[in-house]
This record gives sequence, structure tokens and C-alpha cells, in this order.
Amino acid sequence: MRETLRLTLADIERLAADALFSCGFSKAQADAIARNVTAAERDGCTSHGLFRIPFYRGALANERCDAHATPELSTDERAIVHVDAGGGFCPLALETGLPALIDTAQRHGIAAMAIRRVYNIAALWPEVERLADAGLVAFAFTAANASVAPAGGTGKLYGTNPMAFGYPRADREPLVFDQASAACARGEIQLRLRAGEVLEPGWAIDADGQPTLDPSAALAGAQLPFGGHKGAALALMVELLAGALIGELFSVESSEHDVHGVGAPFGGEFLIAIDPAACAPPGQASTAIARAETLFDRVLEQPGTRLPSDRRFAARRRHLEHGVDIDAELVARLRAF
Amino acid sequence: MRETLRLTLADIERLAADALFSCGFSKAQADAIARNVTAAERDGCTSHGLFRIPFYRGALANERCDAHATPELSTDERAIVHVDAGGGFCPLALETGLPALIDTAQRHGIAAMAIRRVYNIAALWPEVERLADAGLVAFAFTAANASVAPAGGTGKLYGTNPMAFGYPRADREPLVFDQASAACARGEIQLRLRAGEVLEPGWAIDADGQPTLDPSAALAGAQLPFGGHKGAALALMVELLAGALIGELFSVESSEHDVHGVGAPFGGEFLIAIDPAACAPPGQASTAIARAETLFDRVLEQPGTRLPSDRRFAARRRHLEHGVDIDAELVARLRAF
Repeated sequence: MRETLRLTLADIERLAADALFSCGFSKAQADAIARNVTAAERDGCTSHGLFRIPFYRGALANERCDAHATPELSTDERAIVHVDAGGGFCPLALETGLPALIDTAQRHGIAAMAIRRVYNIAALWPEVERLADAGLVAFAFTAANASVAPAGGTGKLYGTNPMAFGYPRADREPLVFDQASAACARGEIQLRLRAGEVLEPGWAIDADGQPTLDPSAALAGAQLPFGGHKGAALALMVELLAGALIGELFSVESSEHDVHGVGAPFGGEFLIAIDPAACAPPGQASTAIARAETLFDRVLEQPGTRLPSDRRFAARRRHLEHGVDIDAELVARLRAF
Repeated sequence: MRETLRLTLADIERLAADALFSCGFSKAQADAIARNVTAAERDGCTSHGLFRIPFYRGALANERCDAHATPELSTDERAIVHVDAGGGFCPLALETGLPALIDTAQRHGIAAMAIRRVYNIAALWPEVERLADAGLVAFAFTAANASVAPAGGTGKLYGTNPMAFGYPRADREPLVFDQASAACARGEIQLRLRAGEVLEPGWAIDADGQPTLDPSAALAGAQLPFGGHKGAALALMVELLAGALIGELFSVESSEHDVHGVGAPFGGEFLIAIDPAACAPPGQASTAIARAETLFDRVLEQPGTRLPSDRRFAARRRHLEHGVDIDAELVARLRAF
């Protein structure tokens, strides 16, 4: 049993921001990352919480990394918003671009955002949730360092390559999912390695292409996509959207550029936002949100079901009230930054 | 061994069009469906080929069905194209709407199309392939009749709910996948039932919610999503995009309206098209296509891999040259229409 400390969300945000600022991040970068990390702890997403701070620090070893970068936003008359993150990190790039994406989606009915030259170590649900809170249907896609084998292959090529989706709901948290096209998140393997636990079958192969339950062997070999060739097709799609389409690196290229092996993926993120009012039949602009509730009711009337993110939202309510228990050793480590 | 007849693609198209016209379809509806069915036979997609014609005829029993419908296209200054299929079938609705979707995506950089009041018994790859052939990155989503259990559930609620994706390639067929969020296509279960074959493990549960390999029991029970809760999340996403977002029926509602049990899903299809030139960094508008090839090369240099749709394109080349062997009984049945 590891020792834990109970921290409030304000404590967590301050701890994260101070740790990052102390090791060389600009205040704007540090604060945006701290907000992102705090949201993850708030929602019980440990692997994207304070645990990630050392990865952010590690990224500074990469010569492309600029911990003082100010993201540059550009738009034109079309419905594509561009953000050049300048070698900084995704949370500040998102805070810079999301208001423009929301505005553009509302004007055109649909819009996309290409974020480039960005280190992305965070989850995708915060941005689709923010878009959904603004009344938009949202997708987000990002590649990562190479860790997943292609369909039928034996070596790492794709990232864990999550895609996230959000759909607005009236007066409550949106419907959100954020899922790796890998059978599990790489952070989960890292956590099991630290905890001395084995993996689930179907998660990974070793360096010889053979199935393994050993976290170390999996990290040296390759993860597997979820659902066989269908998950692999999604991983490929994410590489194309967050890489080729927006002129950014593929996962395997990100790895090759990560000469210090710090494990901080560098490349792009691609988002799509859709205004339901523009998609509805004439005269029914407000029905899309209410209609979705009838489907959610049908899902939940089957025993044993729940909606994606329901556990995350339950953790949010719990942690907002009671604070979060954080590994004491991790807290000490961050305080030593 | 069933007896087969070798038909040219022109033979197949004429057989399909004549059969549909004879049983009451307008020439425009019949010809568009025949082109779609012929493309499926051309590409070796038997379950969406001539095998589907009786399902098209069966749909006529539904009072909402109009085999003479002329789809109505509407656009405005925003980037959403609307097509009211008027109770007709998807191939003609797509032929009506795709040129406008292509034009709108090129002007705005990204666009979407909502097709409503449509019977959709076809695959989705023809439309994403057409969009990719026009140089656009494309998504398509459609719901179906209820056949798939939600995550953790025991009864049918979602359709098999395919999503398709296309990415343009220079001077060759695009990268395309079209995959059900169910573990297998419903047509595959129907084909195995006809062939007297069993299902694969993980494809379905029976009416009591227990795993089954029996096609009849599966059709009476529920199919399972691929990849557990992640595939179920995609199925839910498809319901929201092709249903709630565009004011159309969910799969379970489509089934409830299918009072004659003809199995022809009625509802909507949602498509997104993206112009790579608008997403690229300034001055690099033409790189998105070439960049993707470097990734495809990396996939194919691993032994045992192939790209999605490669087998379909190989079948296409074979069938264009040699024609297609069609079940003789099916040909006789269609000629009797």
C-alpha cells in the first residue's frame, strides 16, 4: 500500500504549475498544463494527472521543444483554423485555438482545427468536452510515439492514437469518449510496470512479435490495436489526420526525432467541430440535443450498461467535494523540482 | 458446390436494373441502385451485390418507401449540404448530393452532408471512394436496424453501424476502409445462415444474452460490437451522427417502424469531406497526398501487412478482366422479377 496525501484541486494545480515553472516553463505554458493535469486528477484519470509532469519536464531535452512558446493562431475565410504551437505543449495551443474553432464552426456549420509543432502528452477528452459544452459535436485525433503494430505486423509503427468524440447534452456533462486505437493506453502499461502488475491478454507482443503479459517486454515490443484489423484501421486513420493531412509527423517519425528517448510525442492534433443547428432539418434546429436523450435512455434501460465517461463524471463529483488522494512519493518528487 | 454463372459487369448492371424496374422502381432509382450493386460485385463484396436486390424489393412493403422518389438537394451559405431522399434509396440520394458536397468542401475547406428519409442497404465505401477520388478526405456514417447490444447489455439496440473513411492517393485507388462497429456485418451472418456455416466466437449472443455460434440464434438475439466497449462507443457515435444530429431515426426506431420486418433500414446518412489543401501548412498544400505514401510504405515493409481495401481492389482488377461468378439460383430469381 503506497502512502497518499489528500490534496484539493487548487493544491494540485498549484503543485503542477510550480513544478513546471521551476524547471523552466513559461508561466503561460505551465499554467495551461497545470489546468489540464488538474482536470485529469479531478476526473480520476491518474495516468494523465500529476504522473505526467515528469514527462513534460523530460520533453525539454528535445531540441525542438520550446517551453516558452507562444502559440500562433491563423484563420482565413475558410473553415479551417490553424495553430502553430511553436514547439510548446498542447494545453496552451488548445486554449489559444478553441475559441476560434467554436466561432468558425458556428459560422460555417462545421469547422476543423490543425494544431502543429506541438508536444502532446495529454488526454483528448478535455477539448471535446469544451467544444460540446459550447454546443458543438466534436472529434479530436492525435498520433503519438510509435508503439503499436499495424494489422498483421510484428513491430511498432503507429502511436496509441486516440480519437475522442463529444456530443452536447442539456444542463449536464456531455456524452464523451476518448479511446486509444491501441488495446490499452501506453500510460496503463507504464502504471502496471510501476505497480508490478501483469498486462491483459491481447494488449501486446514482445520484441520477437510473440504475445506477452510482461509490461517491460511490451514496452520493448509493440502494443496491439483493439479489435484486430478494425482498431488498426482507426490507428492508420489517426496517423493520416493528425500527420499527413496537416503536414505533421507520423508516430514513427516522432519516435525517430525523440533522440533522447524522453517519450514526449511531437507532431499534430486535428479536431472537427459541428454545429447541430446547421445539420438539423429545416425548423428543427433545437431537436438534436433532446433526441439524443431518448437514445441514452434506451441504452441505460438495459441492465449492466452505462454511458462512456459516466465513471469519470462520478469521480469528478467525488473529487470536487473531497479532494484527491495523490501518491506521496510523487508529490515529494514534484516539490523537489 | 453451388452452380454459378459468369457475368460481365455490364450483364450484372442490366440484370439488377431490369429486376428493380420490373418490380416498380423508377428508372432513376433502379439505375442508381444497379450501379451500386454492380460496384459491389466488381469488388468482390458479395453481401452488398446482387444478393441485396431482394432486400431492395422487400423495402417496398414499407409505407414510407417511395421507389419513385426524386431526392431534393438544399444548400445555403454554410458548409452543410442537405439531401431529402423522400423515402427513396441511398444510391440516388448520393448521386444527387455528392457533387454539391465536393464543391462545398472545396470552398469551405471542410463540409458535411446530411441525407434524410433514406433506405440504406448499401456499403459506405463507394461514397468515400468517390470523395477521395475528388481529392478529399472523407468520412461516412450510417445507422441500420437494431441488431447490436450496447456495452454490457444483453439486447439489440444499435445497428451494425458502419463508419467508412477515405484518403486520396495519387494516380491509384484511395486508402479506404468501411467497417461495421459490430464484430461482423449482418450480411455475413445472413450469408453463413444460407451456407449452413457457424459464426466466429465473439460475434453474437442469443435471445437470452448468452454467447452463440448459431446464425439463427444470433439473428434472434443480438450481435456484439467489435473490441468490446470501444466498438460499442463507435456504434453509439454513429447513432448520434446519422440519427440525432440530423433529425433522423435511431436504429431501434428504424426497426420499430419496419412493421413488415423487411429488414431495410430507414433513416439517415452523415458524411464529412475535408480538402487537404486547406489543412496543410502555408505553402505546403500539395504535400498531404505524398506524405501519406511514406506511411503506407512503412506499413507494407512489415511482413504480413496489407492496407485496408487492398483485397477489394485486387478483386476489382480481376473481375474487370474476367467477369464475376454469380450464384445461378440468384440470377434465376432476379430474372423472374
